[in-house]
Amino acid sequence: MQTDLADLVTRALEEDVGTGDVTSAATVPETARAVATITQKAPGVVFGLDVAEAVFARLDPDAEIERLGPEGEWRESGPVLRVAGSARALLAAERTALNFLGRLSGVATLTARCVQAIEGTGAKVLDTRKTTPGLRALEKAAVRAGGGVNHRGSLSDFVLVKDNHLAGLTIAEAVRRAMMRWPGRTVEVECENLEQVHEAIGAGATMLLLDNKTPEKVAEAVGMIRGRAVVEVSGGITLDNAGAYAAAGADLISSGLITNSAPNLDIGLDLE
Amino acid sequence: MQTDLADLVTRALEEDVGTGDVTSAATVPETARAVATITQKAPGVVFGLDVAEAVFARLDPDAEIERLGPEGEWRESGPVLRVAGSARALLAAERTALNFLGRLSGVATLTARCVQAIEGTGAKVLDTRKTTPGLRALEKAAVRAGGGVNHRGSLSDFVLVKDNHLAGLTIAEAVRRAMMRWPGRTVEVECENLEQVHEAIGAGATMLLLDNKTPEKVAEAVGMIRGRAVVEVSGGITLDNAGAYAAAGADLISSGLITNSAPNLDIGLDLE
Amino acid sequence: MQTDLADLVTRALEEDVGTGDVTSAATVPETARAVATITQKAPGVVFGLDVAEAVFARLDPDAEIERLGPEGEWRESGPVLRVAGSARALLAAERTALNFLGRLSGVATLTARCVQAIEGTGAKVLDTRKTTPGLRALEKAAVRAGGGVNHRGSLSDFVLVKDNHLAGLTIAEAVRRAMMRWPGRTVEVECENLEQVHEAIGAGATMLLLDNKTPEKVAEAVGMIRGRAVVEVSGGITLDNAGAYAAAGADLISSGLITNSAPNLDIGLDLE
Amino acid sequence: MQTDLADLVTRALEEDVGTGDVTSAATVPETARAVATITQKAPGVVFGLDVAEAVFARLDPDAEIERLGPEGEWRESGPVLRVAGSARALLAAERTALNFLGRLSGVATLTARCVQAIEGTGAKVLDTRKTTPGLRALEKAAVRAGGGVNHRGSLSDFVLVKDNHLAGLTIAEAVRRAMMRWPGRTVEVECENLEQVHEAIGAGATMLLLDNKTPEKVAEAVGMIRGRAVVEVSGGITLDNAGAYAAAGADLISSGLITNSAPNLDIGLDLE
Amino acid sequence: MQTDLADLVTRALEEDVGTGDVTSAATVPETARAVATITQKAPGVVFGLDVAEAVFARLDPDAEIERLGPEGEWRESGPVLRVAGSARALLAAERTALNFLGRLSGVATLTARCVQAIEGTGAKVLDTRKTTPGLRALEKAAVRAGGGVNHRGSLSDFVLVKDNHLAGLTIAEAVRRAMMRWPGRTVEVECENLEQVHEAIGAGATMLLLDNKTPEKVAEAVGMIRGRAVVEVSGGITLDNAGAYAAAGADLISSGLITNSAPNLDIGLDLE
Amino acid sequence: MQTDLADLVTRALEEDVGTGDVTSAATVPETARAVATITQKAPGVVFGLDVAEAVFARLDPDAEIERLGPEGEWRESGPVLRVAGSARALLAAERTALNFLGRLSGVATLTARCVQAIEGTGAKVLDTRKTTPGLRALEKAAVRAGGGVNHRGSLSDFVLVKDNHLAGLTIAEAVRRAMMRWPGRTVEVECENLEQVHEAIGAGATMLLLDNKTPEKVAEAVGMIRGRAVVEVSGGITLDNAGAYAAAGADLISSGLITNSAPNLDIGLDLE
Repeated sequence: MQTDLADLVTRALEEDVGTGDVTSAATVPETARAVATITQKAPGVVFGLDVAEAVFARLDPDAEIERLGPEGEWRESGPVLRVAGSARALLAAERTALNFLGRLSGVATLTARCVQAIEGTGAKVLDTRKTTPGLRALEKAAVRAGGGVNHRGSLSDFVLVKDNHLAGLTIAEAVRRAMMRWPGRTVEVECENLEQVHEAIGAGATMLLLDNKTPEKVAEAVGMIRGRAVVEVSGGITLDNAGAYAAAGADLISSGLITNSAPNLDIGLDLE
Repeated sequence: MQTDLADLVTRALEEDVGTGDVTSAATVPETARAVATITQKAPGVVFGLDVAEAVFARLDPDAEIERLGPEGEWRESGPVLRVAGSARALLAAERTALNFLGRLSGVATLTARCVQAIEGTGAKVLDTRKTTPGLRALEKAAVRAGGGVNHRGSLSDFVLVKDNHLAGLTIAEAVRRAMMRWPGRTVEVECENLEQVHEAIGAGATMLLLDNKTPEKVAEAVGMIRGRAVVEVSGGITLDNAGAYAAAGADLISSGLITNSAPNLDIGLDLE
Repeated sequence: MQTDLADLVTRALEEDVGTGDVTSAATVPETARAVATITQKAPGVVFGLDVAEAVFARLDPDAEIERLGPEGEWRESGPVLRVAGSARALLAAERTALNFLGRLSGVATLTARCVQAIEGTGAKVLDTRKTTPGLRALEKAAVRAGGGVNHRGSLSDFVLVKDNHLAGLTIAEAVRRAMMRWPGRTVEVECENLEQVHEAIGAGATMLLLDNKTPEKVAEAVGMIRGRAVVEVSGGITLDNAGAYAAAGADLISSGLITNSAPNLDIGLDLE
Repeated sequence: MQTDLADLVTRALEEDVGTGDVTSAATVPETARAVATITQKAPGVVFGLDVAEAVFARLDPDAEIERLGPEGEWRESGPVLRVAGSARALLAAERTALNFLGRLSGVATLTARCVQAIEGTGAKVLDTRKTTPGLRALEKAAVRAGGGVNHRGSLSDFVLVKDNHLAGLTIAEAVRRAMMRWPGRTVEVECENLEQVHEAIGAGATMLLLDNKTPEKVAEAVGMIRGRAVVEVSGGITLDNAGAYAAAGADLISSGLITNSAPNLDIGLDLE
Repeated sequence: MQTDLADLVTRALEEDVGTGDVTSAATVPETARAVATITQKAPGVVFGLDVAEAVFARLDPDAEIERLGPEGEWRESGPVLRVAGSARALLAAERTALNFLGRLSGVATLTARCVQAIEGTGAKVLDTRKTTPGLRALEKAAVRAGGGVNHRGSLSDFVLVKDNHLAGLTIAEAVRRAMMRWPGRTVEVECENLEQVHEAIGAGATMLLLDNKTPEKVAEAVGMIRGRAVVEVSGGITLDNAGAYAAAGADLISSGLITNSAPNLDIGLDLE
Repeated sequence: MQTDLADLVTRALEEDVGTGDVTSAATVPETARAVATITQKAPGVVFGLDVAEAVFARLDPDAEIERLGPEGEWRESGPVLRVAGSARALLAAERTALNFLGRLSGVATLTARCVQAIEGTGAKVLDTRKTTPGLRALEKAAVRAGGGVNHRGSLSDFVLVKDNHLAGLTIAEAVRRAMMRWPGRTVEVECENLEQVHEAIGAGATMLLLDNKTPEKVAEAVGMIRGRAVVEVSGGITLDNAGAYAAAGADLISSGLITNSAPNLDIGLDLE
């Protein structure tokens, strides 16, 4: 439910269409109709069909749109969408629709690979705020489509105390202030060592972030926390080491790469 | 010169800040001041300092901003920006500034790697319209910062006739129509084979696109074209094979990956 | 930090100024200058000076603005702002500035009255999402200025399970689903009776909402909860009964009236 | 006919929904459907159903909406709207729809009470520009729904000369300048005493404002004006004294309270 | 005081600059500076310097801008503005600045010619709502700069009853309804003949519109009206016949041509 | 395909409707229905029906709209559009719809007159960037409807080197830089004399602009160019001399007057 999806689509189309598609204007009759098929061409998880559909509908409100394949499921390849409508509209919408689809499916796919890497451990893949400016809500939905879960949507969701917030404050003081100021909200604390873990839990934090620690250090902390707080690990997580962190007992494995470094999924459009 | 940079920054901040940074509100005094240093942490080309500066200035119009390193140059690592201002503003702006910087520098860096791969051949690295929705102008500037050149900014820049435009038209007819309709504008034609190359040039096209051809096929076409048109190759270009295409005589090596699959460059912020 | 404050001010001015102030255009010379003093005329808490200043600065960027009184403090009356600038700009900005100031100060004032009504109990006055469309962030800041604390800023901040979410779900199931889907986030549950309180706490909820209960019922629930969750009461809270709810042990007394039914604080502008 | 109603609804929803309703996402199936009934729970005049309907339609374009009760009529209580649609959409739209409805109905209701207070006198209840920033047009429509009439919609509607416009000008000069500059437009003048009344009428003013005068003073002025201008009284008007001003012969009784200090009308939503 | 001037300038620049000025980017160094002089090249009244200045300042906030000639005065030719700043910014802003200036000066100039045509008669030149979509406020200001006066800025300013509003209503009824509904506002009535003039005045109308009448008919109506209402004539007014209508006693000569058919005033920019 | 047409229509209506049509509100029942017929009243080419329809549909989404005449064809007069719907909506939409239609049809009509003036010569009428701020895309479409062709839509379409770009650069250098920087794009060069023509063609320019030259000079240049570049003439083109320039061999006759000085075409609306 992204209330400004229409604006996003408008801006993306303005950017790509400019003052008009000069090629189609010269070569494609205004009344010509065509059918476009969008196809997943590489293994992964498709996501973003709502946006792609909105792009086509924006340029041809009477286009007939049919889904040919699933969203949010791992698949080797196959057709995903069929759009019948004005040929000029399909050609003008093509690149914008594919740009959205490719990126969002790329995020869903890399997330799914991460999820697979920690399968069976009970841990979850968590995203971050390292998203593309302007696409936050869509990329977070793509993470969910890939099987991940979402950390904060914005700085206003809940409290996360990091080192930078502790100028002249102890962790315990910071946690107490946050609980006073925002009663009831989750307070997460980034901890550098076991003393800080102890202090944070003692002050009432219910979520802890362990950043750039080895799996061994994480296991040690988890043993001390004994379920009194949700444990998130971050920093240098890759497909190769995610399993070790999960095995160390972390509840949440968070990764900025799944949103800011996912290669596009190869998705193409063919016109009949 | 992106006239709506201010809007872009506003939207990105609204997305990330939401109704307010609950953590800073609870832990950082409203009048506290701090100094942030932004540092490039991995080899590559930094780009996007204008946007990053606009993000900080948006939340603290009185912030003092100083550049510590170059934009648009390959570097191993080092400081790039120093911002002194309201501590709350710096903390709230951090993630948005880094999200812009990381992505744009990622694009510039991958472009630079491509440019390096074809160094000495006289060919140029060309971008595509496969950009992030909403960031077209910035990503195209990042490509230039990395040493690449820009293809069409939008569908209205010039004419590019592809297979999809040829329903019932010959290439020659399409070129002539385009030249009639948009006198003076570049007409580029995607060619599948040498006959089409011949036909396109004969009709007046001054730029040709060879998509998904082997370097050998490209060399054959280049030999036949003999400088009468600019030759662009695309499709499956990688850092490994770009050199072969350039050596085959293509003028422009175009790649969607440099804008839609570039991993973020690692850039961080430290607060004093 | 409301990133779109400028837009809000623009819209408010467009609404009030229309195509121009026909009266000033006819009677006040374009170059005339004047000094406006804004004065609090009734007891209460002034809030919204940032917005008022932005309104004046929007119509006269060179206006000189000086604060004459405090924000966020209870006061009987007195001057709050002095603005020297273009006479036409001051006249055109007057009503919009006062409309913002009057409403926000009204919210801060009614909140302060509520806070006073429960003074000494350790409970806090909590706002709701019953705010004026378009003014959410400002009204929540006014609540804080009046001594209250903020509940969710939006539906995305944290989880609050109400009766309407329980179609075919037990409370325990709902809480578990929420914790799976949004790991780490606060889960609050509205409880109708002691069994539901028991079930919610058992499932992991850390915040409970008791709606439309008598102070006696609240005291009973608080006794059973024994600090294992934060207790919010709502429904029919007035200045008269707030104290009784606080005395019953509720941590948070929430009231929609402080944002949606606060009379404007009387604030006026005089021109020299 | 508020051309930007769609924008207003979008902004209000963005504010309330944020990046998504985390509670419904976790507990309500995406395909679940529900029926919401909106009910007036206290005596008054309901207004704002168009906006409420637009809110629901914005989140579920296929929702079926049915009016169950009248707008613009005094009623003790009763159902007003029935909406059948996506359960998640209904839950996400609920608060925003009620926030609009509650406020606008509050304005209509307080206006109606004022109208009742001067019933039988021939005078009318007039609003002011003391409206909520962003809601001017809707609140003025609510005033009409409550039986009141509208003063200027904005500063550009017609001329109203107040003390602040008279730096170095006599009333007669100001009126003449306004009539020259904006030929044909109403010129209203705020008058402090009978001499000013005399001067304003003599110069051609057709509407007079008497601010903060006793009913006796108003009666005296009305006797002197003898129908040559429309008489508006303002300042300190309450439900208690409005009748006295009307009886004194004022044509228009204007009140800022009906728009800036009206308590919300209690309106609720139940889900089946 | 056009609160959204910044938006207007932004949209105009986006439209003209697109994704960037490809010519300057290739030929003008980023740091080059230049001085532009804007010159009026044909007789007329220059207007729109505020907008032109805003265009330059938008692309180079540090540009130094100096006025070299007057606005709102008839002149044969001469310099009007000098801008020193970034050469690229000046080149990118040139066309947009001139497009605004040329049109607004064209409107001011044609208005001034009309004013001249009725000089000495006491009548005034009045504009209409026949303005360029998006430029209403600016074009109405240009009319004033040319010596004309403004009719309604929008449909909400005051009442103008035309034939189309009289389905089943007499003129007298329409006037009375308008006065009831919008007490105090000007009510103007379009009259087809002397009977309607009589009826409108009798009902309280204070402004009359005589459309498509001969000067003789106008004189006859004016004689009957005897100053009891302001008289506006419209329809087929030209520079040639405007004087005859003014001589016939009309107070206001209204013309759509001055805003919708004014040729641009020739204004050019030279770069040093 | 103007993606932001909806925004344009919204802004135009907000500007014209203000806070509401006070006349219709007082005189036309809310449920009244009417039929409007829009008629071309003078010879010319009608254009802009899409926009006019969007204006009516914006205020009455259920209006029934029927085209009664052709767009883009020269015609003496006749009906063009019939709209049946809410009487209030038709009255409120009338002026905005006609303002769009009148201007766009004026542009199409003047273009058609120009086209007629050079009929049989093989030359084409070309527009410029001298368009109304905010209406660029629509006015360029109107030019096409009148039989003209479009020059650059914006500064980003292709390269046009003028005198102002040559500070310290030869034409040959400027052309080469442009071709390096924007490979494949058209490079047009403004030439003052035959030497410059020679230099520009030699460097690779494919389009030449001859500004403010006599037809004789143009013929001389055309003779020298011998088809190696497209020739555009501009500057002082009128209906009277356009034929001479075309006869001199220019390919494109460009004129700013067709967009910035076209009188509105007389188009009216009648209500049944």
